[in-house]
Amino acid sequence: MRALRKTGRHAGAELQEIPTPEPGEGEVLVRVHAASICGTDLHIYDWNEWAEGRIPRVPMTFGHELSGTVEAVGAEVHHVETGAFVAAETHIACGQCATCRSGRAHICERLRILGVDTDGAFADFVVVPAVNAWVVGEGIAREVATIMEPFGNAVHAAFGTGGGEDLATNAVAVIGCGPIGLFTIGIARALGAWKVIAIEPNPYRRAMAGPMGADLVIDPMQTDPVAAVTEATNGSGAEVVLEMSGNARAIDQGTRMLARGGRMSLLGLPDGPVTLDLNDQVIFKEARLQGITGREMFRTWQQTTTLLSTGRVDVAPVITHRFALDRFEEAFATTASGESGKVILLPGG
Amino acid sequence: MRALRKTGRHAGAELQEIPTPEPGEGEVLVRVHAASICGTDLHIYDWNEWAEGRIPRVPMTFGHELSGTVEAVGAEVHHVETGAFVAAETHIACGQCATCRSGRAHICERLRILGVDTDGAFADFVVVPAVNAWVVGEGIAREVATIMEPFGNAVHAAFGTGGGEDLATNAVAVIGCGPIGLFTIGIARALGAWKVIAIEPNPYRRAMAGPMGADLVIDPMQTDPVAAVTEATNGSGAEVVLEMSGNARAIDQGTRMLARGGRMSLLGLPDGPVTLDLNDQVIFKEARLQGITGREMFRTWQQTTTLLSTGRVDVAPVITHRFALDRFEEAFATTASGESGKVILLPGG
Amino acid sequence: MRALRKTGRHAGAELQEIPTPEPGEGEVLVRVHAASICGTDLHIYDWNEWAEGRIPRVPMTFGHELSGTVEAVGAEVHHVETGAFVAAETHIACGQCATCRSGRAHICERLRILGVDTDGAFADFVVVPAVNAWVVGEGIAREVATIMEPFGNAVHAAFGTGGGEDLATNAVAVIGCGPIGLFTIGIARALGAWKVIAIEPNPYRRAMAGPMGADLVIDPMQTDPVAAVTEATNGSGAEVVLEMSGNARAIDQGTRMLARGGRMSLLGLPDGPVTLDLNDQVIFKEARLQGITGREMFRTWQQTTTLLSTGRVDVAPVITHRFALDRFEEAFATTASGESGKVILLPGG
Amino acid sequence: MRALRKTGRHAGAELQEIPTPEPGEGEVLVRVHAASICGTDLHIYDWNEWAEGRIPRVPMTFGHELSGTVEAVGAEVHHVETGAFVAAETHIACGQCATCRSGRAHICERLRILGVDTDGAFADFVVVPAVNAWVVGEGIAREVATIMEPFGNAVHAAFGTGGGEDLATNAVAVIGCGPIGLFTIGIARALGAWKVIAIEPNPYRRAMAGPMGADLVIDPMQTDPVAAVTEATNGSGAEVVLEMSGNARAIDQGTRMLARGGRMSLLGLPDGPVTLDLNDQVIFKEARLQGITGREMFRTWQQTTTLLSTGRVDVAPVITHRFALDRFEEAFATTASGESGKVILLPGG
Repeated sequence: MRALRKTGRHAGAELQEIPTPEPGEGEVLVRVHAASICGTDLHIYDWNEWAEGRIPRVPMTFGHELSGTVEAVGAEVHHVETGAFVAAETHIACGQCATCRSGRAHICERLRILGVDTDGAFADFVVVPAVNAWVVGEGIAREVATIMEPFGNAVHAAFGTGGGEDLATNAVAVIGCGPIGLFTIGIARALGAWKVIAIEPNPYRRAMAGPMGADLVIDPMQTDPVAAVTEATNGSGAEVVLEMSGNARAIDQGTRMLARGGRMSLLGLPDGPVTLDLNDQVIFKEARLQGITGREMFRTWQQTTTLLSTGRVDVAPVITHRFALDRFEEAFATTASGESGKVILLPGG
Repeated sequence: MRALRKTGRHAGAELQEIPTPEPGEGEVLVRVHAASICGTDLHIYDWNEWAEGRIPRVPMTFGHELSGTVEAVGAEVHHVETGAFVAAETHIACGQCATCRSGRAHICERLRILGVDTDGAFADFVVVPAVNAWVVGEGIAREVATIMEPFGNAVHAAFGTGGGEDLATNAVAVIGCGPIGLFTIGIARALGAWKVIAIEPNPYRRAMAGPMGADLVIDPMQTDPVAAVTEATNGSGAEVVLEMSGNARAIDQGTRMLARGGRMSLLGLPDGPVTLDLNDQVIFKEARLQGITGREMFRTWQQTTTLLSTGRVDVAPVITHRFALDRFEEAFATTASGESGKVILLPGG
Repeated sequence: MRALRKTGRHAGAELQEIPTPEPGEGEVLVRVHAASICGTDLHIYDWNEWAEGRIPRVPMTFGHELSGTVEAVGAEVHHVETGAFVAAETHIACGQCATCRSGRAHICERLRILGVDTDGAFADFVVVPAVNAWVVGEGIAREVATIMEPFGNAVHAAFGTGGGEDLATNAVAVIGCGPIGLFTIGIARALGAWKVIAIEPNPYRRAMAGPMGADLVIDPMQTDPVAAVTEATNGSGAEVVLEMSGNARAIDQGTRMLARGGRMSLLGLPDGPVTLDLNDQVIFKEARLQGITGREMFRTWQQTTTLLSTGRVDVAPVITHRFALDRFEEAFATTASGESGKVILLPGG
Repeated sequence: MRALRKTGRHAGAELQEIPTPEPGEGEVLVRVHAASICGTDLHIYDWNEWAEGRIPRVPMTFGHELSGTVEAVGAEVHHVETGAFVAAETHIACGQCATCRSGRAHICERLRILGVDTDGAFADFVVVPAVNAWVVGEGIAREVATIMEPFGNAVHAAFGTGGGEDLATNAVAVIGCGPIGLFTIGIARALGAWKVIAIEPNPYRRAMAGPMGADLVIDPMQTDPVAAVTEATNGSGAEVVLEMSGNARAIDQGTRMLARGGRMSLLGLPDGPVTLDLNDQVIFKEARLQGITGREMFRTWQQTTTLLSTGRVDVAPVITHRFALDRFEEAFATTASGESGKVILLPGG
């Protein structure tokens, strides 16, 4: 089969012919229909500092957002059948640690990641643990199913660790309109937010915020976002801030635009330590900063399936580019350009 | 009456004779039995940078932790009677802002503080809004009632904004064994924590942690507190960290000793901005940083009353010094020495 | 002024000229623009068994759902001004009991009801406690503002005692399509429910369910509602059941259509004791039955204001009839007929 | 091996020699050290109506509360090793239904029960699914480990579906002092309840309530329990009622002793439908009735392990009788007598 491989610990990748893998115990082999590119994949492609520190071995196949059809099942697989249309949860949990045993497998103490710690999905076939295969069901197209994984990040960030109990009738600010940020705009809108305010410096991305449901879209290079959110909320600030940018300055601004008693979900990964004014922006306001990673297994997937299959959220505006697998160089350049939403690789062409 | 006054915007205070104030509309006049000294009072006494920026006017009487008997009531007071034994909630809320109207008066948008924005309790008498007078009830002594206010801070920090749902059977680390930190040790113990681990460099304060119920007491100057908490919790970290120190380094350590999915209540006020490793310590762990200030009105007071009147928590080890009001200089020196727990001024001698 | 009075403990009412009342301490006088008729008012009008047991004295003016303009304020009123456009919270709480003091004034131990325990709003003027006057703000018409009180019941029932954390992406069954039930349909839709299923035997009311946002509307006389909900949810049942009918059989059915781990909000008042199969429908399913009454003060009013002023929920389909005050007999007959949604009396004509 | 068998669909049981079973795929074979008798076992022994309707087949071995050592493991078992000291979760979940996939396996749609749907633990050996084997760890004796399963019921009932957020500083009434009810007394005490009030007509059981930590013990045949709880709580009622009796009258009383806004956990299984006054006892009070079954997998087991291994709760007063397996007739007679707490069978003698 064809697979997009990191062959050395440096930038770039090669599309190679390698043997189709066999599913082992508890694993399934999936024929990949669509595999979308995540920021993590770009880091691996470019082989930045994070990739050098995090990727355990090369050669390896990367890519982790996927939809496909189960082609074969290994031993000890009882609940996923050949022919099933699946997406994949990419957090591979141990199932045995205290965190897993208390129902929080997505923050497993021994977490591994598909396409980072294992061979991934930029290929004709990929092997995934059967427990990570999510049977998609009716009404979700192949190209949409591949973005269920990052959409799930958005669902988890928006719902938070409660049940999104603070979204309805409240003001929600979304910092960073990459694909996951854009998804949260649609989700907050679908869950009855009062106002959804999007903040993004990149004009291409900013242009997608309105179609996803933002009431107000702010360019933080032109307008002070803290002042803008404060004004739009009659001085109160946003009850919910969804921090999807990972930009240190934006995180600080997020705390400043947060209402008294508000919640900021932190999903974007900053490059380094972040300095915050805890006194005025967190303690006196009784704000809550909530780290968010991955997706709840599998409540988030149930929510994701409902939101997408019913059209409560329409992700079409965010899916901007599609490339055959062998045009991967264009695909990564498009992703890196900032002039894109979600970019999808199609191994089937 | 006698009142301990800041007469100028500089260090020190004077015990002066001033007219006994009259309670205005909605106010009560309280004869002060006991008034304990808070760190804030020390800032005002020393007139540090915070005091210079925060205290609106002098001359003023300071002090805000008090117990006493209602001596007179003003107009429009219907529910507090002369002779009632009361403590005082010191957050004076407007009652009308969005935060107040949604049941969170302690983070009122127009909050004023007794003894900071108004004349306070280091005096023979003090005027407090009737709605801020908490009728103490049976079984709580005068000296204990005066510390209900800081004890309430501890209750609120320990219970968090849930109901302390994560304390029972979990590991709780308390950073900083000033009086409020010491109180949280007793509270976490009373609420069924698995282990309570206290961290404090000052040996005098550290010595009170055990009597308050700590299972393990750490001197962070001798032992790495992150390693110690990690080891004591079999590698998992503490599900709850109560940050009562305000020390920037300790706050960072707090995030590092926090278990995956854990909660850190932030009550201690750092001197300046704080730098945190959000990626590894908050986002990937899905940790929650929760600002805490004041006391829920008046759920926290109900909880405080129950914990103290039943003896579920015994604060006797923390009340270390008592002084007549005219010995205020000794009292402040003792508070500043670090060789004290709670220091109480007794206007009645 | 004119006032619709119960002059004896029997059916009927008289429109009388009586002196315009004066607002007392802490009270405001409101010129009534619109006053809608509640089921309770019908009970009082008909003087049924409940009215005989509950109404403390006659003569009295009834009616409690209202919008109007503050005409005068009494002593000790500091935050409501003459000329303000207000609706009224009708639960008059004592403010001093343990329930009030812990932020749950709507279930005050000494609760009194406007228009039941005090003179009400079917009149040119009504006196209400200042603290019960809700300043409506922009974008809500007089006729809509009068239904903020029952709409608030619907908000409170739908959000439950959490924050509606179980509505989004879940199936919601609404039993009983009186006005409050119809409102909950719109609210559940606005908060991102997966499917909203309405159950109502009365064809007139059933016809309003679709316009309010129901995906499926069931006549329980023709179709077994338990089977219908089960089928519509692929066998799982509804995660949320909003019981607005008070019909004993429907309450039992509600438990049977509830999903494992589901929540049933009970707002409709049954005529007598209700018999339930706790084993199979509550215990083994870990279902939750949650009593709901009134509105949270004043979080529910904030939510209500947002939902109505933004058009997230449009109540126009439910407001079916308007009558001048002197046509009250027609208004009550229309309300009693079942061929109506919300019926509004307009003292101004 | 020896096994206590139901050989026909009638009362009684026979201790037979049968072949030691082999663990199948995903199963482990456990040598039973101790197996305690549950009320369910008594129903099966007596072969009452419930047993006739529920037990799918005979002959079968019953018994489900156990501790023991893993003797052998089947295929596909990766995480439980021979020699491990284990207790057993007795709810055998499918792992695939919507409820399981959302982290609520204990209310699985296709739930099976060890010793009811499968051969059980009153034997020298028992086969359990590996995923149901809970490795006990240090500090819990064999006789105590066998009651971890019913103790887990008590933990789950006490903590409820929140985290026991309403226990600390509140009044807790426990209705029914069978072993599980007695355990909840100790748990509520350990979690900082204000007062724990126990209600039980049987004097033998009532005598154990005090040693387990009850502040007040009521004989409902002598004293009206509603009046007694109301009086003991200064008129407010209990914020938490733990209904462990399954007695229809007691359930009704439970709602009447519940405070405004209170929570009643329903664990006891009534014999038939139960009639409740929903208006006054649930709706107007905004009470919550919460069905409770089984144990959260495996958060409850983590909590159980901590409470028992630390001695936060001491179950010694409840373990009243021990019998060798061949003295099963005495053991069941003792259980049926009401003059017992927990009765333990010891296959090893």
